[in-house]
Amino acid sequence: MDTVFCNVTAVTMDDQMHVLPGAFVGVRGGRIAYIGRHMPSEPVKEAIDGTGMVLMPGLINAHTHLPMAPLRGWSEDKPLQPWLESVWEIEARMDERTVRNATLLGIMEALRFGTTSVSEMYDHIGAIAEAVAQSGIKANIARGTTMFQGDEFDFRTFPGCVELREAVEQWHDYDDGRIRIEASIHGEYTSTYQLWEALATYAAEEGLGMHVHLSETKKEHEESLERNGLTPAQVLDCHRVWDVRASAAHCVWLDEEDMGMLSRRGVSAVHCPVSNLKLGSGIAPVVRMRAEGMNVALGTDSVASNNNLDLFEEIKLAALLAKVQTGKPDALPAAEVLKMATRGGAIAQGREDECGQIALGMDADLILLDFTKTHLIPCHDVISQLVYAASGHDVVLTMVRGRILYRDGQFPTIDELAVLQELAGYTIPTLFDPKDDESTPTEG
Amino acid sequence: MDTVFCNVTAVTMDDQMHVLPGAFVGVRGGRIAYIGRHMPSEPVKEAIDGTGMVLMPGLINAHTHLPMAPLRGWSEDKPLQPWLESVWEIEARMDERTVRNATLLGIMEALRFGTTSVSEMYDHIGAIAEAVAQSGIKANIARGTTMFQGDEFDFRTFPGCVELREAVEQWHDYDDGRIRIEASIHGEYTSTYQLWEALATYAAEEGLGMHVHLSETKKEHEESLERNGLTPAQVLDCHRVWDVRASAAHCVWLDEEDMGMLSRRGVSAVHCPVSNLKLGSGIAPVVRMRAEGMNVALGTDSVASNNNLDLFEEIKLAALLAKVQTGKPDALPAAEVLKMATRGGAIAQGREDECGQIALGMDADLILLDFTKTHLIPCHDVISQLVYAASGHDVVLTMVRGRILYRDGQFPTIDELAVLQELAGYTIPTLFDPKDDESTPTEG
Repeated sequence: MDTVFCNVTAVTMDDQMHVLPGAFVGVRGGRIAYIGRHMPSEPVKEAIDGTGMVLMPGLINAHTHLPMAPLRGWSEDKPLQPWLESVWEIEARMDERTVRNATLLGIMEALRFGTTSVSEMYDHIGAIAEAVAQSGIKANIARGTTMFQGDEFDFRTFPGCVELREAVEQWHDYDDGRIRIEASIHGEYTSTYQLWEALATYAAEEGLGMHVHLSETKKEHEESLERNGLTPAQVLDCHRVWDVRASAAHCVWLDEEDMGMLSRRGVSAVHCPVSNLKLGSGIAPVVRMRAEGMNVALGTDSVASNNNLDLFEEIKLAALLAKVQTGKPDALPAAEVLKMATRGGAIAQGREDECGQIALGMDADLILLDFTKTHLIPCHDVISQLVYAASGHDVVLTMVRGRILYRDGQFPTIDELAVLQELAGYTIPTLFDPKDDESTPTEG
Repeated sequence: MDTVFCNVTAVTMDDQMHVLPGAFVGVRGGRIAYIGRHMPSEPVKEAIDGTGMVLMPGLINAHTHLPMAPLRGWSEDKPLQPWLESVWEIEARMDERTVRNATLLGIMEALRFGTTSVSEMYDHIGAIAEAVAQSGIKANIARGTTMFQGDEFDFRTFPGCVELREAVEQWHDYDDGRIRIEASIHGEYTSTYQLWEALATYAAEEGLGMHVHLSETKKEHEESLERNGLTPAQVLDCHRVWDVRASAAHCVWLDEEDMGMLSRRGVSAVHCPVSNLKLGSGIAPVVRMRAEGMNVALGTDSVASNNNLDLFEEIKLAALLAKVQTGKPDALPAAEVLKMATRGGAIAQGREDECGQIALGMDADLILLDFTKTHLIPCHDVISQLVYAASGHDVVLTMVRGRILYRDGQFPTIDELAVLQELAGYTIPTLFDPKDDESTPTEG
């Protein structure tokens, strides 16, 4: 046995939502190989004391843009249009090297807060894949593609499609599927049917997933109704975008018909509550989507609209918003939200047989949380504690496929200082910009 | 000089919201005695390196019930009535000793997350005051009093009023005002006009503040309209409850007339966004209350409806909810929310000349945050970082009146282990209750 977590409280996230106190969970060859009440009888390379700790499946961040890490706090409290313009100002300056380092910065943050797998959507995805490969984290990486009315389109030469095909050749199923490349239509409002059909066809031929921003804002949703006589979900359906496993990020403005159709088509919604509030987009109808049978996962979106990658914030906020939205405190119980952040994400990523639970044979994608701090005492209910009282800051160890990628402030696979130094030369100003110093106070 | 924070980025929270990089902030006799660009020339007992750190005024939690710490996670995802009943089940078992220790547990959590002053409302307030006195934190402590139709009422003998008068004699203005005792009507719906008038008169005579739960739920608000033909705010106004400095917790359902009247009467609203979402109460009209001229502070409420005392969560959520509620991303900018959590709280507590800013002569109620972690890099804007990306977990030091009460996981004034052992015998089950273990998994 490579590693055993000893005397830990294991939250399995299986169908019965077992919470096992005093458990021993063993890892062999990157997979969960033992769950019991005693040390396994075979030799153990590393025993990790889990006394006072909770072990659970790693969280899955099903919608993010990691390379936007340098944009954290860059442009705040602004309406969408000026916000986008100031974001584009920075993005225009980002090259492959910046994207690779920015992705590593984002991965460190994700790992530190207990995320073991991400669904990424951006460009320069070769550079993103390099960072993911190095770090050891799991990722579905989608090449978010836009195409505007009047753009010449030929799938063989259109830049976003060329980049996607190259990434599929080089990176799809890398490291036994740790990396998966996906197709991505950035959004209905930022592309045309030629792109939708070409990507839908290509994804179906290559067995790729699809990742789309869907009905994030009321404006986007209503303009599609005006332009197409159909909602964004419906018009994309007509062009066979949902023929493959697909994730639809946001889904704030879906109507009942959309929900029924997306449910039948097996599309996962990715709820990004912090981002949707921060940009004033609205509150997604999570309880209704689930009632229609849709799988709902959770995502942070980028740090430009969040401003961190702590998915525990999404977990708590998803639970809270459902209560106030429906007026029913039991509309979305704690256990269900925790499932959205683990198994729901695994389903969205097409990884439900691989991770999202502590079960024999699953990948050892695990996180350990320190439950001995004052804010987690007493502990009447481990699940409620994880959802309402804990934070990503309580994570002390993050493991993907049996490899420890974060432990007590350290990232064994990433040179943190080198990443920060690389980024300093590109887009990051000094930690505290002198422009903040508007005047000099007097002395006493 | 007793203590100097050296080379720190100081967020002053003064009217100009200065952010001072490379600052030196000195403390003498419990007060801020120096703000400059160099070490002060007089001898310094302790120099604290603030490189990569942010120093700001301590947060003020303007509505909480610290002794409810043992109820964290006790009763989850339930409608109000069964929730209240299960809470009362525990509360009936709490005596003075439990309250004192539970308050110490709550104070540790508050300090750990950067709170330097709390507005408390509960009973057994003598025991609460003992815990506050020992710990060094600042507190306004209100004796939340209920009185139901049919109860015999005589101010001289009514138990809640007796307890209040005893606490005023023993504890009001203790330690040069570090503790202040306040009168408190628990709520319009849990008392009658005899109590309102008696407490309003007593508070005015003794120069005490007043702390009330106000229009938290739609039911409470509408039943007052039915019963009195007046909103809770209006009926309490008729009985002179707002004659003294007063805090009104929640204010979710205030109407425009309430806001105008409470503004003219100088009543502070205390916004508790997490608790209001968790109990499905609604979203308080913060932007409208501020537009009417009301001071708005922030509170966590108790851990039974939160479930932690990290006021940074309220800061972020208050900013986010205002955006989605108004549809305007700039409706409540980051700096304004940070003011609510500091100066707004100081105003609510009647302490605006004493704390809430880094300024010469103010009490040294200060917190230090570590800004060198991946989730706080880069830092384009310190204020936005504090509001949207930081967490109470980033606090590494909490000081009240120049005394360090929390530093790097340690509480110099509180014996953490003794508190936990005391509570174990009362209401806290073992950390992980064996009842959670419903079955035994198999081994692999």
